[in-house]
Amino acid sequence: MATTLAQLLALHGPNLNLLGTREPGQYGTATLEQIQERTIGQAARRGYHLVHFQSNHEGALVDQIHLAPGKFSGILINPAAYTHTSVALRDALLAVGLPVVEVHLSNIYRREPFRHHSYIADIAVGQISGFGPDSYYLGLAALINHLEGTSEIL
Amino acid sequence: MATTLAQLLALHGPNLNLLGTREPGQYGTATLEQIQERTIGQAARRGYHLVHFQSNHEGALVDQIHLAPGKFSGILINPAAYTHTSVALRDALLAVGLPVVEVHLSNIYRREPFRHHSYIADIAVGQISGFGPDSYYLGLAALINHLEGTSEIL
Amino acid sequence: MATTLAQLLALHGPNLNLLGTREPGQYGTATLEQIQERTIGQAARRGYHLVHFQSNHEGALVDQIHLAPGKFSGILINPAAYTHTSVALRDALLAVGLPVVEVHLSNIYRREPFRHHSYIADIAVGQISGFGPDSYYLGLAALINHLEGTSEIL
Amino acid sequence: MATTLAQLLALHGPNLNLLGTREPGQYGTATLEQIQERTIGQAARRGYHLVHFQSNHEGALVDQIHLAPGKFSGILINPAAYTHTSVALRDALLAVGLPVVEVHLSNIYRREPFRHHSYIADIAVGQISGFGPDSYYLGLAALINHLEGTSEIL
Amino acid sequence: MATTLAQLLALHGPNLNLLGTREPGQYGTATLEQIQERTIGQAARRGYHLVHFQSNHEGALVDQIHLAPGKFSGILINPAAYTHTSVALRDALLAVGLPVVEVHLSNIYRREPFRHHSYIADIAVGQISGFGPDSYYLGLAALINHLEGTSEIL
Amino acid sequence: MATTLAQLLALHGPNLNLLGTREPGQYGTATLEQIQERTIGQAARRGYHLVHFQSNHEGALVDQIHLAPGKFSGILINPAAYTHTSVALRDALLAVGLPVVEVHLSNIYRREPFRHHSYIADIAVGQISGFGPDSYYLGLAALINHLEGTSEIL
Amino acid sequence: MATTLAQLLALHGPNLNLLGTREPGQYGTATLEQIQERTIGQAARRGYHLVHFQSNHEGALVDQIHLAPGKFSGILINPAAYTHTSVALRDALLAVGLPVVEVHLSNIYRREPFRHHSYIADIAVGQISGFGPDSYYLGLAALINHLEGTSEIL
Amino acid sequence: MATTLAQLLALHGPNLNLLGTREPGQYGTATLEQIQERTIGQAARRGYHLVHFQSNHEGALVDQIHLAPGKFSGILINPAAYTHTSVALRDALLAVGLPVVEVHLSNIYRREPFRHHSYIADIAVGQISGFGPDSYYLGLAALINHLEGTSEIL
Amino acid sequence: MATTLAQLLALHGPNLNLLGTREPGQYGTATLEQIQERTIGQAARRGYHLVHFQSNHEGALVDQIHLAPGKFSGILINPAAYTHTSVALRDALLAVGLPVVEVHLSNIYRREPFRHHSYIADIAVGQISGFGPDSYYLGLAALINHLEGTSEIL
Amino acid sequence: MATTLAQLLALHGPNLNLLGTREPGQYGTATLEQIQERTIGQAARRGYHLVHFQSNHEGALVDQIHLAPGKFSGILINPAAYTHTSVALRDALLAVGLPVVEVHLSNIYRREPFRHHSYIADIAVGQISGFGPDSYYLGLAALINHLEGTSEIL
Amino acid sequence: MATTLAQLLALHGPNLNLLGTREPGQYGTATLEQIQERTIGQAARRGYHLVHFQSNHEGALVDQIHLAPGKFSGILINPAAYTHTSVALRDALLAVGLPVVEVHLSNIYRREPFRHHSYIADIAVGQISGFGPDSYYLGLAALINHLEGTSEIL
Amino acid sequence: MATTLAQLLALHGPNLNLLGTREPGQYGTATLEQIQERTIGQAARRGYHLVHFQSNHEGALVDQIHLAPGKFSGILINPAAYTHTSVALRDALLAVGLPVVEVHLSNIYRREPFRHHSYIADIAVGQISGFGPDSYYLGLAALINHLEGTSEIL
Repeated sequence: MATTLAQLLALHGPNLNLLGTREPGQYGTATLEQIQERTIGQAARRGYHLVHFQSNHEGALVDQIHLAPGKFSGILINPAAYTHTSVALRDALLAVGLPVVEVHLSNIYRREPFRHHSYIADIAVGQISGFGPDSYYLGLAALINHLEGTSEIL
Repeated sequence: MATTLAQLLALHGPNLNLLGTREPGQYGTATLEQIQERTIGQAARRGYHLVHFQSNHEGALVDQIHLAPGKFSGILINPAAYTHTSVALRDALLAVGLPVVEVHLSNIYRREPFRHHSYIADIAVGQISGFGPDSYYLGLAALINHLEGTSEIL
Repeated sequence: MATTLAQLLALHGPNLNLLGTREPGQYGTATLEQIQERTIGQAARRGYHLVHFQSNHEGALVDQIHLAPGKFSGILINPAAYTHTSVALRDALLAVGLPVVEVHLSNIYRREPFRHHSYIADIAVGQISGFGPDSYYLGLAALINHLEGTSEIL
Repeated sequence: MATTLAQLLALHGPNLNLLGTREPGQYGTATLEQIQERTIGQAARRGYHLVHFQSNHEGALVDQIHLAPGKFSGILINPAAYTHTSVALRDALLAVGLPVVEVHLSNIYRREPFRHHSYIADIAVGQISGFGPDSYYLGLAALINHLEGTSEIL
Repeated sequence: MATTLAQLLALHGPNLNLLGTREPGQYGTATLEQIQERTIGQAARRGYHLVHFQSNHEGALVDQIHLAPGKFSGILINPAAYTHTSVALRDALLAVGLPVVEVHLSNIYRREPFRHHSYIADIAVGQISGFGPDSYYLGLAALINHLEGTSEIL
Repeated sequence: MATTLAQLLALHGPNLNLLGTREPGQYGTATLEQIQERTIGQAARRGYHLVHFQSNHEGALVDQIHLAPGKFSGILINPAAYTHTSVALRDALLAVGLPVVEVHLSNIYRREPFRHHSYIADIAVGQISGFGPDSYYLGLAALINHLEGTSEIL
Repeated sequence: MATTLAQLLALHGPNLNLLGTREPGQYGTATLEQIQERTIGQAARRGYHLVHFQSNHEGALVDQIHLAPGKFSGILINPAAYTHTSVALRDALLAVGLPVVEVHLSNIYRREPFRHHSYIADIAVGQISGFGPDSYYLGLAALINHLEGTSEIL
Repeated sequence: MATTLAQLLALHGPNLNLLGTREPGQYGTATLEQIQERTIGQAARRGYHLVHFQSNHEGALVDQIHLAPGKFSGILINPAAYTHTSVALRDALLAVGLPVVEVHLSNIYRREPFRHHSYIADIAVGQISGFGPDSYYLGLAALINHLEGTSEIL
Repeated sequence: MATTLAQLLALHGPNLNLLGTREPGQYGTATLEQIQERTIGQAARRGYHLVHFQSNHEGALVDQIHLAPGKFSGILINPAAYTHTSVALRDALLAVGLPVVEVHLSNIYRREPFRHHSYIADIAVGQISGFGPDSYYLGLAALINHLEGTSEIL
Repeated sequence: MATTLAQLLALHGPNLNLLGTREPGQYGTATLEQIQERTIGQAARRGYHLVHFQSNHEGALVDQIHLAPGKFSGILINPAAYTHTSVALRDALLAVGLPVVEVHLSNIYRREPFRHHSYIADIAVGQISGFGPDSYYLGLAALINHLEGTSEIL
Repeated sequence: MATTLAQLLALHGPNLNLLGTREPGQYGTATLEQIQERTIGQAARRGYHLVHFQSNHEGALVDQIHLAPGKFSGILINPAAYTHTSVALRDALLAVGLPVVEVHLSNIYRREPFRHHSYIADIAVGQISGFGPDSYYLGLAALINHLEGTSEIL
Repeated sequence: MATTLAQLLALHGPNLNLLGTREPGQYGTATLEQIQERTIGQAARRGYHLVHFQSNHEGALVDQIHLAPGKFSGILINPAAYTHTSVALRDALLAVGLPVVEVHLSNIYRREPFRHHSYIADIAVGQISGFGPDSYYLGLAALINHLEGTSEIL
């Protein structure tokens, strides 16, 4: 599953642009920008260029995924609300066939029952949920390890 | 939530002693011993002494959790089959009140429906599922970060 | 909960632009424009500037909600079809934390079972359903009363 | 649906006699008497005589509904607990065939799941839930508008 | 199961007092009084005194059932709306232990799903549903036949 | 709904040929032949020729129903086991459009849950259940009354 | 939660007036009067005046609960059939806010599935089920202990 | 239902732009462009101008449907992922009231359970599923036949 | 999947012999004979001999399917009522392993919920529902195309 | 339960006539004839004459069961598809009251969920599933042992 | 049901050894030792020797129950987490056939839904839930009363 | 699947040590020792050494299964209560990958609904239920036949 493309795509679903301001009790105080900066650095140290894309539009996220093949070798995704409602995102990810790691800032299993089901989880390599921004950092490490067949964490 | 106890407990549920030999297509070829060694080293680099305990006995895992307070500052757990059936483990973790990180080698959301529900997930800090041994390494990093209020991954 | 911002936001979900032409037996003959005009006047009489926004795009509605804080003191929303399918709208409303009043032209409890559940109702101040355009007028009055802690109806 | 009878009936289900004293966090501090006085005045301004009836007895509410035809032109009802359990009330309302508006002080969609279903909602003109005493004032306005084919709110 | 008491009790649940006026499309144009008269005659021809009792009050129906033992040898009941909601009626009938025949004017299996379940059916001798007033006449014949171990119909 | 055809069809589903020998505790000791004789007499007294048909074959019952139009004016059916499993019988009855009365010897609501649902009940005039052979006699009376718009029982 | 009012209220739901005569196999041979006498004595020994009220009317039980505040310091209730169907009773108990102990003579978990759910249990201090009249005596002791913060049993 | 407008609209939901490249095992190797060309020719031979529109955006599809009345006489739609999640599309189709034929390339009944439900099927003329590009060609023929009241296939 | 056998089998389930006379509102006015003639002609034009078989007997349809291998190269089936209840038909089709196309005259998704599930759909090539006799013509074209790997429609 | 009749009946449900040719991966390569021959021999060695009957017709199987009393002392049945859909077979077996042993060639618990439920299992002595033709041999041994109160296996 | 064995067994399920330290908000501050001492005294006053056994091991509790017959005349059990998950405990209690009283410190009906079901309740004499340590004292009194056919509480 | 190891493992779940004494109506009078002796003899006659292991501890059964590979060539298991609750046993059996035959003394399909589901059935070769000790003898024969590819029964 390793790939020679040195680019990775990070997708952020609806409302994540508000991170840091939105329900800090639920999602923490880090902004999306801070997470993006740090993950870009983290990816760079592993030799990857990480491109971020956030949208509140399901279709825009689908469009973006369609552009991935031949450009990115893996996808880190926090589908946010679309985790629970979007078959279109699922189909887009199935269509492009790239390795996907699904992350969530909050612990979705502590929240409303409708958040316990993910349309992405069973087509992803794996899922990380509940560690705040760390979910991104862990997920990125997991994605790169998966691509390289290595196991670098610390 | 940070704590001055420099010990962490890693719990492994039923059948994990067979790791590496058991259904390699599902769980990979790493043995539990290899994972234990590597996580001990990983913890040590963060300044923690990591103690491992595996049992096929639900009661033995509960007993072990009872010994944790005053000795360990956090628990990394792969409850394996007991994830889906053990209220006793849930109650033990609730009783000792230590931060818990739940990990799974395989992606439980790709498997039988009864594996999609966890009695631990909603009382854990977070859950990591599907990355093979990396689930342990990511989970350990997440637990230490959670205890220290830091965010070291790479 | 009172606020000094004299602006209110009215959001209209998918297909509401067709009001008056679309299924008059179900939704009546008033057009969205007529409702907008009347509610603008109604709000003005209470000292508020009411801004209307309609979109068939879930993401566009989410975008609009994100612009609300610091600009609007409350939201009147007819989420239409997205009532029943959009966790993204719910999350956006939760994120901005403004008082929300949910209205429906038709009586959603008389229709298909999938219309009986709302992702908005339990995070709104209240819900009004079944009174045709009156649902808007009643909802606007309720929202202003809620903001002012008063109870003006007639 | 307009009618020449200038009388309206307001029905209040079980425990509403305790309003103002009962769970103020849930239902507010206004007493039923205060709501009755205000709605009588509100109706009078629209040219209607509003008669109130409260009972903790399902059968007494049914009896009262039976007296309505030929005397009242519409019914404003807060069925309270009987919303969720009384087919008898539903049948009584169906039998007399008068326009019904259903109101709830609290937001029933924020509460226990068994409160999310109403045996009245699908046979009512519409439902208003969550605005405290305003639910009554809004509901009365909606009922009169419905009867007159007008749309007076403010 | 034959008994020497020559009295039978006919119970009529909520809203049946409106028979003939209420939803004739659903329940026909015969009044309760007409049905009562005819069933009294029908019972008399079989040698029984039939006593009728209608109430909209669940408790009043229960009270009446309690008076039955030692006075009546069987019960013909149209529990109407309480068919679907009253465990109290079920318990009262179980308590007095008299043979019960359950009748419905309308075909309850053609109506809303909540009308398909009866708390009485499985403790009755049998159930007759859908024949308008004939349900009463058939039910009375069935009850007397059951009591006498005979099978007179025509 | 009255008709000038003086013939009625009585259909008996699977295993009813064993009546009288089969599970007498459940179904009584009367044989199907005895019931047939008596109902033929009962019908004759009302001026109808009643034709009986029993089969253990779902298809044979369907075939028979197809022959009914233009020959019979109503159908009395005890679908037995096919009550709960045969959409084909339902469709046949719907197709021929004759009035149908459904009868059951035993009280189907006292038995296994799968016997509580009937594919016939909501397309029949009515259903009679639990009175042993009387269910047939009552059902035949009900059918003839329905056809004639009369109400003869005793 | 202790209170200086030396009066307690015991409420008995529908059909309990028949105790001792009704289904002795299910409910035993003690009459309600005998239970009332004994509990009055038991309460007196603990320094409380116990007042009993039985009704088959849901509304009458609600009315009685409304009279409790300022007069009684706790409620012992056997809601009988209303356990499973009455939201009105639940709301009345919630409204008066007194400590409630729920008792059942029979073991409700051995009976029909609809008896396994109680609308009272989750708002009561606790529930006692299955010990015949002892359920009352145990419940009364539990209620007084709860009020006094003591633990007297024997 | 026949119409004199000689234009038809073909709508393609999310990810269908990837046809031919995306999961060929599931969806075949024909591209959307090839299907579009062929259906344009097929429509032309029947005297219709067929206009194609594909979007990954639910809102854009809704917008497009709104433009249809007065311009198109029927709609051929493959809603793809939105089949299973979009009430907005359903409402848009209901609003414009044009005949709709629903097609699917893959057999949706062979796939994940959430693909077995369609929000469109019960408001469409009919549904065709499982024939690859033939689903489009068959659906177009069915739509034109429906519009013309003819039955041309071959 | 192409085959050299130039014969096709068309199976028609229960009640389809009544086509044209039975519920024309639901199924149209074409008779089964007319449909058979037309499909025989349609098949002939594609070079196939089409054999029709209708039965109201589940077992007879199963028997017929068993005769298919070595004689027919594909099956066009309208299982009618057996669509929803017959595992035996499903097993017969699985056993003979021929390509199957499932057709329905009416739109089964607009009808009773029990008609939304098909025991055949997931083992068929595809399903066509709702186009009246056109469902047959479209289905036959689809079957032949499937067998020949071609795509002839018009 | 022992009986002096030295005959046993073996019933085979729909599609079992195809055994050996049908889905060998699922059902093995033994033909029904081979199984019949072997079981006849096996029965003979235990002193029983075993009669086989296979039909694809539910009604024919029911007919056959009706002939059993007084002729056969026990029934070995593989109801195949009718296991999951036939209440008629269940009722026939209940009616004749002979000991029944249910067997399945394939492991029904490994297959589609609708195959996990049997209408026969809870009225049979026992069930054997998954051992190919051995299911028959084991089932026959079990039946004879049950009849004789012995336990001969090897 | 009285017995001459003067010994009783009290069983305590998983995590109860932590009582007093574990979640005092949920379970109170009394330790298991304190409860054991008090119940031993309480039993002694009634003439019984009470033996306590606590284990976190389901199997150890089962083993202990097996030793009970011939030694103990009744069992007081707080199965804790195993209440909701252990069929083995249920079977052990069924096997030894001694009277069982089930107690819970917390009100299990106020907690997570999975705690509302007990595998023990329907095979116990009765259940007591929610009174803290009093649940034990009440349960012990109930057990001894049950054994002696007396009703001593105070 | 044949194997050269001449040893087989027989596992017995919780409470089976009580066989013969425990609920003889449900499980018969044979003791586990008697069954063990007989199966050892039966295995010996087929050339196998059969080792028995019974435990009430889920973990002990898992431990035992782990020892099986390289020592035993197949497993005969009566998981008793753990049939319905133990994912750990399932995982252990999956892990060791030996052929498994599941047996039950009682007919689990006649008992409580929670006994109708087995976590073992779909990973076993087959299941035998309801024949008392014969279930063991039949299961052992089936296991050996499965291992040897033979079909010896009698």
